[in-house]
Amino acid sequence: MAGKAGKREIRGVLLDIDGVLYVGGQAVEGGREAVAWLRDNGIPFRCVSNTTSRSRRSIAEKLRGYGYEIDAGLVFNPPLAAVRHLAGKRTFLLTKEGVREDFEAAGIPLAEDDAEAVVVGDAGDGFSYAAMNRAFRMVLDGAAIVALEKDRYWMGDDGLMLSAGPFVAALEYATGQTATVVGKPSAAFFSLALADMGVPPEEALMVGDDIRTDIGGAQGAGMRTALVMTGKFRKDIFDAAPYQPDHLLGSVADLPAVIEATYI
Amino acid sequence: MAGKAGKREIRGVLLDIDGVLYVGGQAVEGGREAVAWLRDNGIPFRCVSNTTSRSRRSIAEKLRGYGYEIDAGLVFNPPLAAVRHLAGKRTFLLTKEGVREDFEAAGIPLAEDDAEAVVVGDAGDGFSYAAMNRAFRMVLDGAAIVALEKDRYWMGDDGLMLSAGPFVAALEYATGQTATVVGKPSAAFFSLALADMGVPPEEALMVGDDIRTDIGGAQGAGMRTALVMTGKFRKDIFDAAPYQPDHLLGSVADLPAVIEATYI
Repeated sequence: MAGKAGKREIRGVLLDIDGVLYVGGQAVEGGREAVAWLRDNGIPFRCVSNTTSRSRRSIAEKLRGYGYEIDAGLVFNPPLAAVRHLAGKRTFLLTKEGVREDFEAAGIPLAEDDAEAVVVGDAGDGFSYAAMNRAFRMVLDGAAIVALEKDRYWMGDDGLMLSAGPFVAALEYATGQTATVVGKPSAAFFSLALADMGVPPEEALMVGDDIRTDIGGAQGAGMRTALVMTGKFRKDIFDAAPYQPDHLLGSVADLPAVIEATYI
Repeated sequence: MAGKAGKREIRGVLLDIDGVLYVGGQAVEGGREAVAWLRDNGIPFRCVSNTTSRSRRSIAEKLRGYGYEIDAGLVFNPPLAAVRHLAGKRTFLLTKEGVREDFEAAGIPLAEDDAEAVVVGDAGDGFSYAAMNRAFRMVLDGAAIVALEKDRYWMGDDGLMLSAGPFVAALEYATGQTATVVGKPSAAFFSLALADMGVPPEEALMVGDDIRTDIGGAQGAGMRTALVMTGKFRKDIFDAAPYQPDHLLGSVADLPAVIEATYI
Protein backbone atom coordinates (compact mmCIF):
# COMPACT_ATOMS: atom_id res chain seq x y z
CA MET A 1 0.00 0.00 0.00
CA ALA A 2 1.37 3.40 -0.97
CA GLY A 3 0.29 6.55 0.89
CA LYS A 4 -1.15 9.49 -1.06
CA ALA A 5 -0.39 13.12 -0.27
CA GLY A 6 -2.29 14.25 2.85
CA LYS A 7 -3.37 10.75 3.70
CA ARG A 8 -1.99 8.32 6.20
CA GLU A 9 -1.23 4.73 5.61
CA ILE A 10 -2.86 2.13 7.83
CA ARG A 11 -0.32 -0.60 8.42
CA GLY A 12 -2.18 -2.45 11.13
CA VAL A 13 -5.68 -2.89 12.58
CA LEU A 14 -6.94 -3.90 16.01
CA LEU A 15 -10.42 -5.41 16.01
CA ASP A 16 -12.47 -5.60 19.18
CA ILE A 17 -14.29 -8.95 19.28
CA ASP A 18 -17.59 -8.99 21.19
CA GLY A 19 -19.90 -6.40 19.60
CA VAL A 20 -17.69 -5.98 16.54
CA LEU A 21 -17.12 -9.45 15.07
CA TYR A 22 -20.14 -11.07 16.71
CA VAL A 23 -23.20 -9.78 18.54
CA GLY A 24 -25.81 -11.68 20.51
CA GLY A 25 -24.59 -15.13 19.48
CA GLN A 26 -24.27 -14.35 15.74
CA ALA A 27 -21.43 -13.24 13.49
CA VAL A 28 -21.89 -9.64 12.31
CA GLU A 29 -22.96 -9.67 8.66
CA GLY A 30 -20.00 -8.92 6.40
CA GLY A 31 -17.53 -9.40 9.24
CA ARG A 32 -15.88 -12.48 7.78
CA GLU A 33 -15.46 -10.70 4.45
CA ALA A 34 -13.88 -7.66 6.14
CA VAL A 35 -11.37 -9.85 7.98
CA ALA A 36 -10.62 -11.74 4.74
CA TRP A 37 -10.08 -8.37 2.99
CA LEU A 38 -7.47 -7.35 5.59
CA ARG A 39 -5.68 -10.66 5.08
CA ASP A 40 -5.86 -10.44 1.26
CA ASN A 41 -4.47 -6.90 1.34
CA GLY A 42 -1.59 -7.81 3.62
CA ILE A 43 -2.74 -5.55 6.44
CA PRO A 44 -1.76 -7.15 9.75
CA PHE A 45 -4.42 -7.26 12.43
CA ARG A 46 -5.09 -8.58 15.88
CA CYS A 47 -8.39 -9.47 17.51
CA VAL A 48 -8.33 -7.80 20.92
CA SER A 49 -10.52 -8.81 23.84
CA ASN A 50 -10.70 -7.58 27.40
CA THR A 51 -12.00 -10.86 28.73
CA THR A 52 -9.88 -12.27 31.53
CA SER A 53 -11.64 -15.60 31.90
CA ARG A 54 -10.63 -17.25 28.59
CA SER A 55 -7.26 -18.11 27.06
CA ARG A 56 -6.22 -16.93 23.60
CA ARG A 57 -6.82 -20.43 22.29
CA SER A 58 -10.33 -20.49 23.73
CA ILE A 59 -11.14 -17.05 22.27
CA ALA A 60 -9.86 -18.14 18.83
CA GLU A 61 -11.97 -21.30 19.03
CA LYS A 62 -15.04 -19.21 19.75
CA LEU A 63 -14.28 -16.96 16.76
CA ARG A 64 -13.85 -19.99 14.49
CA GLY A 65 -17.25 -21.13 15.71
CA TYR A 66 -18.60 -17.91 14.17
CA GLY A 67 -16.81 -18.67 10.90
CA TYR A 68 -13.76 -16.43 11.36
CA GLU A 69 -10.45 -17.87 10.24
CA ILE A 70 -8.53 -16.85 13.34
CA ASP A 71 -5.87 -18.78 15.18
CA ALA A 72 -4.67 -18.07 18.71
CA GLY A 73 -1.68 -16.09 17.45
CA LEU A 74 -4.02 -13.40 16.13
CA VAL A 75 -5.75 -12.93 19.49
CA PHE A 76 -4.40 -10.33 21.90
CA ASN A 77 -5.89 -10.39 25.40
CA PRO A 78 -4.98 -8.95 28.82
CA PRO A 79 -3.07 -12.10 29.86
CA LEU A 80 -0.77 -11.63 26.86
CA ALA A 81 -0.31 -7.98 27.78
CA ALA A 82 0.48 -9.13 31.31
CA VAL A 83 3.03 -11.63 29.98
CA ARG A 84 4.87 -8.83 28.15
CA HIS A 85 4.69 -6.61 31.22
CA LEU A 86 5.88 -9.34 33.60
CA ALA A 87 9.02 -10.04 31.56
CA GLY A 88 9.62 -13.41 33.20
CA LYS A 89 8.83 -12.43 36.79
CA ARG A 90 7.77 -15.13 39.24
CA THR A 91 3.98 -14.73 39.29
CA PHE A 92 1.00 -15.63 41.47
CA LEU A 93 -2.23 -15.89 39.48
CA LEU A 94 -5.47 -14.75 41.11
CA THR A 95 -7.53 -15.58 38.01
CA LYS A 96 -9.80 -18.24 36.57
CA GLU A 97 -8.03 -21.47 35.61
CA GLY A 98 -8.86 -20.80 31.94
CA VAL A 99 -6.18 -18.14 31.43
CA ARG A 100 -3.44 -20.13 33.16
CA GLU A 101 -2.32 -21.62 29.85
CA ASP A 102 -1.59 -18.17 28.39
CA PHE A 103 1.00 -17.66 31.11
CA GLU A 104 2.37 -21.19 30.96
CA ALA A 105 2.70 -21.04 27.16
CA ALA A 106 4.77 -17.87 27.54
CA GLY A 107 7.07 -19.49 30.06
CA ILE A 108 6.07 -17.27 33.00
CA PRO A 109 7.11 -19.05 36.22
CA LEU A 110 3.94 -19.49 38.26
CA ALA A 111 4.12 -19.74 42.04
CA GLU A 112 1.88 -19.98 45.08
CA ASP A 113 4.45 -18.28 47.34
CA ASP A 114 7.16 -15.60 47.19
CA ALA A 115 5.96 -14.19 43.87
CA GLU A 116 7.36 -10.97 42.40
CA ALA A 117 4.00 -10.14 40.85
CA VAL A 118 0.36 -10.86 41.68
CA VAL A 119 -1.82 -10.96 38.56
CA VAL A 120 -5.51 -10.30 39.24
CA GLY A 121 -8.20 -11.15 36.69
CA ASP A 122 -11.86 -12.04 37.04
CA ALA A 123 -11.36 -15.03 39.32
CA GLY A 124 -15.06 -15.48 40.15
CA ASP A 125 -15.39 -17.98 43.00
CA GLY A 126 -11.59 -17.99 43.11
CA PHE A 127 -11.82 -14.70 45.05
CA SER A 128 -11.83 -16.53 48.39
CA TYR A 129 -10.58 -14.94 51.61
CA ALA A 130 -7.65 -17.39 51.64
CA ALA A 131 -6.59 -16.46 48.10
CA MET A 132 -7.01 -12.73 48.73
CA ASN A 133 -4.96 -13.01 51.92
CA ARG A 134 -2.26 -14.94 50.09
CA ALA A 135 -2.06 -12.24 47.41
CA PHE A 136 -2.06 -9.52 50.09
CA ARG A 137 0.90 -10.99 51.95
CA MET A 138 2.93 -11.33 48.76
CA VAL A 139 2.28 -7.68 47.85
CA LEU A 140 3.34 -6.62 51.36
CA ASP A 141 6.50 -8.63 50.76
CA GLY A 142 7.22 -6.64 47.60
CA ALA A 143 5.20 -8.22 44.78
CA ALA A 144 3.67 -5.83 42.22
CA ILE A 145 -0.10 -5.85 41.61
CA VAL A 146 -0.87 -6.40 37.91
CA ALA A 147 -4.58 -6.05 37.03
CA LEU A 148 -5.78 -7.74 33.85
CA GLU A 149 -8.67 -5.29 34.00
CA LYS A 150 -10.24 -3.01 36.60
CA ASP A 151 -13.88 -3.26 35.54
CA ARG A 152 -16.54 -2.93 38.20
CA TYR A 153 -18.98 -5.64 37.09
CA TRP A 154 -20.40 -7.53 34.15
CA MET A 155 -23.84 -8.87 33.24
CA GLY A 156 -24.17 -12.56 34.14
CA ASP A 157 -27.02 -14.92 33.40
CA ASP A 158 -28.91 -14.11 36.59
CA GLY A 159 -27.75 -10.55 37.28
CA LEU A 160 -24.69 -8.36 37.72
CA MET A 161 -21.46 -10.04 38.77
CA LEU A 162 -18.42 -8.43 40.37
CA SER A 163 -15.48 -8.23 38.00
CA ALA A 164 -11.78 -8.01 38.92
CA GLY A 165 -11.83 -4.27 39.69
CA PRO A 166 -13.29 -4.38 43.22
CA PHE A 167 -10.79 -7.05 44.30
CA VAL A 168 -7.92 -5.07 42.78
CA ALA A 169 -9.20 -2.06 44.76
CA ALA A 170 -9.26 -4.22 47.92
CA LEU A 171 -5.60 -5.20 47.50
CA GLU A 172 -4.67 -1.59 46.77
CA TYR A 173 -6.45 -0.43 49.92
CA ALA A 174 -4.86 -3.15 52.06
CA THR A 175 -1.31 -2.56 50.87
CA GLY A 176 -1.15 1.10 49.82
CA GLN A 177 0.21 -0.06 46.44
CA THR A 178 -1.25 0.93 43.07
CA ALA A 179 -2.00 -1.76 40.50
CA THR A 180 -0.72 -1.61 36.94
CA VAL A 181 -3.74 -2.20 34.69
CA VAL A 182 -2.68 -4.00 31.51
CA GLY A 183 -6.11 -4.49 29.82
CA LYS A 184 -8.20 -1.94 27.93
CA PRO A 185 -8.45 1.05 28.22
CA SER A 186 -4.82 1.29 29.37
CA ALA A 187 -2.51 2.73 26.71
CA ALA A 188 -0.13 -0.12 27.56
CA PHE A 189 -2.62 -2.66 26.23
CA PHE A 190 -2.89 -1.01 22.82
CA SER A 191 0.84 -0.34 22.65
CA LEU A 192 1.66 -3.97 23.43
CA ALA A 193 -0.87 -5.24 20.87
CA LEU A 194 0.72 -2.97 18.24
CA ALA A 195 4.22 -4.01 19.24
CA ASP A 196 3.05 -7.59 18.67
CA MET A 197 2.59 -6.58 14.99
CA GLY A 198 5.50 -4.15 14.83
CA VAL A 199 3.20 -1.28 13.82
CA PRO A 200 3.51 2.26 15.25
CA PRO A 201 0.28 3.69 16.71
CA GLU A 202 -0.04 6.57 14.24
CA GLU A 203 -0.27 4.01 11.43
CA ALA A 204 -2.77 1.77 13.20
CA LEU A 205 -6.58 1.77 13.42
CA MET A 206 -8.64 0.53 16.39
CA VAL A 207 -12.14 -0.73 15.56
CA GLY A 208 -14.46 -1.04 18.54
CA ASP A 209 -18.00 -0.60 19.86
CA ASP A 210 -17.17 1.04 23.21
CA ILE A 211 -16.60 4.79 22.99
CA ARG A 212 -14.63 4.84 26.24
CA THR A 213 -12.52 1.71 26.46
CA ASP A 214 -12.00 1.19 22.71
CA ILE A 215 -12.00 4.70 21.23
CA GLY A 216 -10.82 6.70 24.24
CA GLY A 217 -8.25 4.05 25.13
CA ALA A 218 -6.82 3.76 21.61
CA GLN A 219 -6.64 7.55 21.21
CA GLY A 220 -4.72 7.66 24.46
CA ALA A 221 -2.20 5.34 22.82
CA GLY A 222 -1.98 7.61 19.75
CA MET A 223 -4.03 5.43 17.40
CA ARG A 224 -6.65 6.24 14.77
CA THR A 225 -10.11 4.98 15.65
CA ALA A 226 -13.34 3.70 14.13
CA LEU A 227 -16.51 3.21 16.18
CA VAL A 228 -19.00 0.62 14.94
CA MET A 229 -22.75 1.04 15.53
CA THR A 230 -23.19 -2.60 16.51
CA GLY A 231 -22.76 -4.25 19.93
CA LYS A 232 -22.99 -1.88 22.87
CA PHE A 233 -23.09 1.26 20.67
CA ARG A 234 -25.70 3.76 21.86
CA LYS A 235 -26.31 7.09 20.17
CA ASP A 236 -26.92 8.99 23.42
CA ILE A 237 -23.71 7.74 25.02
CA PHE A 238 -21.82 8.51 21.81
CA ASP A 239 -23.19 12.07 21.67
CA ALA A 240 -22.30 12.73 25.32
CA ALA A 241 -18.85 11.14 25.25
CA PRO A 242 -15.67 13.22 25.48
CA TYR A 243 -14.13 11.12 22.70
CA GLN A 244 -14.70 11.50 18.96
CA PRO A 245 -13.71 8.59 16.69
CA ASP A 246 -12.09 9.34 13.34
CA HIS A 247 -14.76 7.19 11.69
CA LEU A 248 -18.27 6.04 12.52
CA LEU A 249 -19.15 2.76 10.78
CA GLY A 250 -22.50 1.02 10.46
CA SER A 251 -20.60 -2.18 11.19
CA VAL A 252 -17.23 -3.81 10.67
CA ALA A 253 -18.45 -4.66 7.15
CA ASP A 254 -17.74 -1.02 6.22
CA LEU A 255 -14.09 -1.28 7.27
CA PRO A 256 -12.55 -2.10 3.84
CA ALA A 257 -14.38 0.78 2.13
CA VAL A 258 -13.27 3.25 4.82
CA ILE A 259 -9.65 2.16 4.71
CA GLU A 260 -9.63 2.35 0.89
CA ALA A 261 -11.35 5.73 0.71
CA THR A 262 -9.45 7.41 3.47
CA TYR A 263 -5.99 6.02 3.68
CA ILE A 264 -4.91 4.17 0.55
CA MET B 1 -18.21 15.08 92.31
CA ALA B 2 -18.05 18.87 92.39
CA GLY B 3 -15.94 20.82 89.89
CA LYS B 4 -13.36 23.27 91.15
CA ALA B 5 -12.55 26.56 89.47
CA GLY B 6 -10.46 26.03 86.32
CA LYS B 7 -10.98 22.30 86.39
CA ARG B 8 -13.39 20.14 84.47
CA GLU B 9 -15.49 17.40 85.83
CA ILE B 10 -15.16 13.96 84.35
CA ARG B 11 -18.62 12.43 84.34
CA GLY B 12 -17.80 9.42 82.18
CA VAL B 13 -14.85 7.30 80.99
CA LEU B 14 -14.33 5.12 77.93
CA LEU B 15 -11.72 2.38 78.39
CA ASP B 16 -10.13 0.68 75.42
CA ILE B 17 -9.78 -3.03 76.17
CA ASP B 18 -6.90 -4.81 74.43
CA GLY B 19 -3.65 -3.08 75.41
CA VAL B 20 -5.32 -1.12 78.24
CA LEU B 21 -7.12 -3.65 80.47
CA TYR B 22 -5.09 -6.66 79.35
CA VAL B 23 -1.90 -7.15 77.35
CA GLY B 24 -0.40 -10.34 75.97
CA GLY B 25 -2.80 -12.67 77.75
CA GLN B 26 -2.53 -11.00 81.18
CA ALA B 27 -4.55 -8.38 83.02
CA VAL B 28 -2.64 -5.09 83.35
CA GLU B 29 -1.44 -4.70 86.93
CA GLY B 30 -3.70 -2.33 88.83
CA GLY B 31 -6.32 -2.43 86.10
CA ARG B 32 -8.95 -4.19 88.23
CA GLU B 33 -8.42 -1.68 91.03
CA ALA B 34 -8.78 1.26 88.61
CA VAL B 35 -12.08 -0.09 87.28
CA ALA B 36 -13.28 -0.72 90.83
CA TRP B 37 -12.35 2.88 91.73
CA LEU B 38 -14.50 4.22 88.88
CA ARG B 39 -17.41 2.13 90.12
CA ASP B 40 -16.90 3.12 93.77
CA ASN B 41 -16.77 6.81 92.82
CA GLY B 42 -19.93 6.60 90.74
CA ILE B 43 -18.17 7.51 87.50
CA PRO B 44 -19.94 5.73 84.63
CA PHE B 45 -17.71 3.95 82.13
CA ARG B 46 -17.88 1.73 79.09
CA CYS B 47 -15.28 -0.75 77.84
CA VAL B 48 -14.92 -0.01 74.13
CA SER B 49 -13.48 -2.45 71.61
CA ASN B 50 -13.07 -2.23 67.87
CA THR B 51 -13.24 -5.98 67.38
CA THR B 52 -15.91 -7.04 64.93
CA SER B 53 -15.60 -10.78 65.40
CA ARG B 54 -16.99 -11.08 68.95
CA SER B 55 -20.30 -10.17 70.53
CA ARG B 56 -20.62 -7.91 73.57
CA ARG B 57 -21.36 -10.96 75.71
CA SER B 58 -18.25 -12.73 74.43
CA ILE B 59 -16.05 -9.67 75.08
CA ALA B 60 -17.45 -9.34 78.61
CA GLU B 61 -16.76 -13.04 79.25
CA LYS B 62 -13.17 -12.56 78.16
CA LEU B 63 -12.80 -9.57 80.52
CA ARG B 64 -14.25 -11.55 83.40
CA GLY B 65 -11.64 -14.22 82.60
CA TYR B 66 -9.05 -11.54 83.39
CA GLY B 67 -10.78 -10.75 86.67
CA TYR B 68 -12.72 -7.65 85.60
CA GLU B 69 -16.24 -7.37 86.95
CA ILE B 70 -17.82 -6.40 83.63
CA ASP B 71 -21.13 -7.48 82.20
CA ALA B 72 -22.16 -7.20 78.55
CA GLY B 73 -24.07 -3.97 79.19
CA LEU B 74 -20.77 -2.20 79.94
CA VAL B 75 -19.21 -3.23 76.62
CA PHE B 76 -19.57 -0.94 73.63
CA ASN B 77 -18.46 -2.38 70.29
CA PRO B 78 -18.93 -1.52 66.60
CA PRO B 79 -21.97 -3.82 66.24
CA LEU B 80 -23.73 -1.81 68.96
CA ALA B 81 -22.77 1.41 67.19
CA ALA B 82 -24.17 -0.11 63.99
CA VAL B 83 -27.40 -1.04 65.76
CA ARG B 84 -27.89 2.59 66.82
CA HIS B 85 -27.03 3.80 63.31
CA LEU B 86 -29.34 1.27 61.58
CA ALA B 87 -32.38 2.35 63.59
CA GLY B 88 -34.32 -0.80 62.73
CA LYS B 89 -33.40 -1.05 59.05
CA ARG B 90 -33.61 -4.45 57.34
CA THR B 91 -29.96 -5.58 57.35
CA PHE B 92 -27.70 -8.04 55.56
CA LEU B 93 -24.72 -9.08 57.72
CA LEU B 94 -21.38 -9.70 56.00
CA THR B 95 -19.64 -10.53 59.29
CA LYS B 96 -18.55 -13.47 61.39
CA GLU B 97 -21.36 -15.42 63.01
CA GLY B 98 -20.15 -14.31 66.45
CA VAL B 99 -21.56 -10.78 66.24
CA ARG B 100 -24.95 -11.88 64.90
CA GLU B 101 -26.37 -12.00 68.41
CA ASP B 102 -25.61 -8.31 69.01
CA PHE B 103 -27.96 -7.46 66.13
CA GLU B 104 -30.58 -10.04 67.05
CA ALA B 105 -30.61 -8.91 70.68
CA ALA B 106 -31.31 -5.36 69.50
CA GLY B 107 -34.18 -6.49 67.29
CA ILE B 108 -32.55 -5.58 63.98
CA PRO B 109 -34.38 -7.51 61.23
CA LEU B 110 -31.74 -9.61 59.46
CA ALA B 111 -32.19 -10.61 55.84
CA GLU B 112 -30.37 -12.39 53.02
CA ASP B 113 -32.19 -10.40 50.33
CA ASP B 114 -33.65 -6.93 49.73
CA ALA B 115 -31.82 -5.37 52.68
CA GLU B 116 -31.79 -1.62 53.32
CA ALA B 117 -28.27 -1.84 54.77
CA VAL B 118 -25.26 -4.09 54.28
CA VAL B 119 -23.13 -4.31 57.44
CA VAL B 120 -19.51 -5.32 56.79
CA GLY B 121 -17.25 -6.55 59.58
CA ASP B 122 -14.25 -8.84 59.61
CA ALA B 123 -15.99 -11.85 58.02
CA GLY B 124 -12.79 -13.87 57.51
CA ASP B 125 -13.61 -16.86 55.33
CA GLY B 126 -17.13 -15.44 55.04
CA PHE B 127 -15.72 -13.04 52.43
CA SER B 128 -16.58 -15.42 49.58
CA TYR B 129 -17.26 -14.25 46.05
CA ALA B 130 -20.90 -15.29 46.44
CA ALA B 131 -21.34 -13.25 49.62
CA MET B 132 -19.54 -10.23 48.17
CA ASN B 133 -21.70 -10.42 45.04
CA ARG B 134 -24.85 -10.67 47.15
CA ALA B 135 -23.84 -7.57 49.12
CA PHE B 136 -22.90 -5.76 45.90
CA ARG B 137 -26.30 -6.35 44.31
CA MET B 138 -28.15 -5.13 47.40
CA VAL B 139 -26.09 -1.92 47.47
CA LEU B 140 -26.83 -1.35 43.77
CA ASP B 141 -30.50 -1.79 44.67
CA GLY B 142 -30.21 0.98 47.25
CA ALA B 143 -28.84 -0.55 50.44
CA ALA B 144 -26.37 1.56 52.45
CA ILE B 145 -22.88 0.22 53.23
CA VAL B 146 -22.20 0.27 56.99
CA ALA B 147 -18.62 -0.66 57.91
CA LEU B 148 -18.01 -1.91 61.46
CA GLU B 149 -14.40 -0.87 60.87
CA LYS B 150 -12.22 -0.05 57.87
CA ASP B 151 -8.91 -1.44 59.14
CA ARG B 152 -6.46 -2.80 56.59
CA TYR B 153 -5.23 -5.89 58.42
CA TRP B 154 -4.50 -7.47 61.80
CA MET B 155 -1.84 -9.80 63.13
CA GLY B 156 -3.01 -13.42 63.12
CA ASP B 157 -1.26 -16.47 64.53
CA ASP B 158 0.64 -17.21 61.32
CA GLY B 159 0.93 -13.73 59.80
CA LEU B 160 -1.06 -10.69 58.72
CA MET B 161 -4.72 -11.17 57.91
CA LEU B 162 -6.97 -8.92 55.83
CA SER B 163 -9.49 -7.05 57.96
CA ALA B 164 -12.85 -5.63 56.86
CA GLY B 165 -11.40 -2.49 55.25
CA PRO B 166 -10.26 -3.96 51.92
CA PHE B 167 -13.64 -5.62 51.37
CA VAL B 168 -15.44 -2.40 52.25
CA ALA B 169 -13.20 -0.65 49.70
CA ALA B 170 -14.13 -3.33 47.12
CA LEU B 171 -17.86 -2.70 47.59
CA GLU B 172 -17.28 1.06 47.43
CA TYR B 173 -15.34 0.70 44.18
CA ALA B 174 -17.95 -1.61 42.64
CA THR B 175 -20.94 0.57 43.51
CA GLY B 176 -19.62 4.13 43.67
CA GLN B 177 -21.15 4.41 47.17
CA THR B 178 -19.27 5.49 50.30
CA ALA B 179 -19.49 3.37 53.43
CA THR B 180 -20.43 4.81 56.82
CA VAL B 181 -17.76 3.64 59.28
CA VAL B 182 -19.27 3.17 62.74
CA GLY B 183 -16.21 1.76 64.60
CA LYS B 184 -13.17 3.65 65.92
CA PRO B 185 -11.79 6.13 64.94
CA SER B 186 -15.10 7.53 63.66
CA ALA B 187 -16.49 10.32 65.83
CA ALA B 188 -19.84 8.54 65.59
CA PHE B 189 -18.46 5.60 67.57
CA PHE B 190 -17.36 7.74 70.50
CA SER B 191 -20.51 9.85 70.38
CA LEU B 192 -22.73 6.77 70.46
CA ALA B 193 -20.74 5.24 73.33
CA LEU B 194 -21.14 8.48 75.30
CA ALA B 195 -24.83 8.71 74.45
CA ASP B 196 -25.12 5.19 75.91
CA MET B 197 -24.03 6.75 79.24
CA GLY B 198 -25.75 10.11 78.75
CA VAL B 199 -22.45 11.99 79.13
CA PRO B 200 -21.44 14.93 76.89
CA PRO B 201 -17.99 14.57 75.23
CA GLU B 202 -16.42 17.58 76.98
CA GLU B 203 -17.04 15.84 80.31
CA ALA B 204 -15.72 12.46 79.19
CA LEU B 205 -12.26 10.89 79.10
CA MET B 206 -11.05 8.30 76.59
CA VAL B 207 -8.27 5.97 77.79
CA GLY B 208 -6.46 4.08 75.02
CA ASP B 209 -3.13 2.76 73.74
CA ASP B 210 -3.49 3.79 70.08
CA ILE B 211 -2.51 7.40 69.39
CA ARG B 212 -4.50 7.48 66.16
CA THR B 213 -7.70 5.49 66.62
CA ASP B 214 -8.10 6.10 70.37
CA ILE B 215 -6.63 9.56 70.98
CA GLY B 216 -7.13 11.12 67.53
CA GLY B 217 -10.60 9.59 67.22
CA ALA B 218 -11.77 10.69 70.67
CA GLN B 219 -10.42 14.21 70.17
CA GLY B 220 -12.37 14.35 66.90
CA ALA B 221 -15.47 13.66 68.97
CA GLY B 222 -14.59 16.46 71.42
CA MET B 223 -13.40 14.25 74.29
CA ARG B 224 -10.51 14.55 76.75
CA THR B 225 -7.90 11.84 76.28
CA ALA B 226 -5.33 9.75 78.14
CA LEU B 227 -2.75 7.59 76.36
CA VAL B 228 -1.41 4.58 78.25
CA MET B 229 2.15 3.33 77.68
CA THR B 230 1.06 -0.31 77.63
CA GLY B 231 -0.21 -2.38 74.68
CA LYS B 232 0.73 -1.04 71.27
CA PHE B 233 2.21 2.21 72.67
CA ARG B 234 5.50 3.10 70.99
CA LYS B 235 7.51 6.20 71.85
CA ASP B 236 8.60 6.91 68.25
CA ILE B 237 5.04 6.70 66.91
CA PHE B 238 3.84 8.88 69.81
CA ASP B 239 6.51 11.52 69.14
CA ALA B 240 5.70 11.65 65.40
CA ALA B 241 1.91 11.61 65.74
CA PRO B 242 -0.20 14.69 64.94
CA TYR B 243 -2.24 14.06 68.11
CA GLN B 244 -1.34 15.03 71.66
CA PRO B 245 -3.23 13.37 74.51
CA ASP B 246 -4.20 15.44 77.54
CA HIS B 247 -2.48 12.84 79.74
CA LEU B 248 0.23 10.24 79.31
CA LEU B 249 -0.16 7.37 81.79
CA GLY B 250 2.24 4.55 82.61
CA SER B 251 -0.78 2.30 82.62
CA VAL B 252 -4.49 2.32 83.39
CA ALA B 253 -3.48 1.89 87.06
CA ASP B 254 -2.64 5.61 87.08
CA LEU B 255 -6.14 6.59 86.03
CA PRO B 256 -7.65 7.27 89.50
CA ALA B 257 -4.74 9.50 90.51
CA VAL B 258 -4.94 11.52 87.30
CA ILE B 259 -8.69 12.00 87.55
CA GLU B 260 -8.38 13.05 91.21
CA ALA B 261 -5.44 15.41 90.64
CA THR B 262 -6.71 17.02 87.50
CA TYR B 263 -10.43 17.09 87.50
CA ILE B 264 -11.94 16.61 90.93
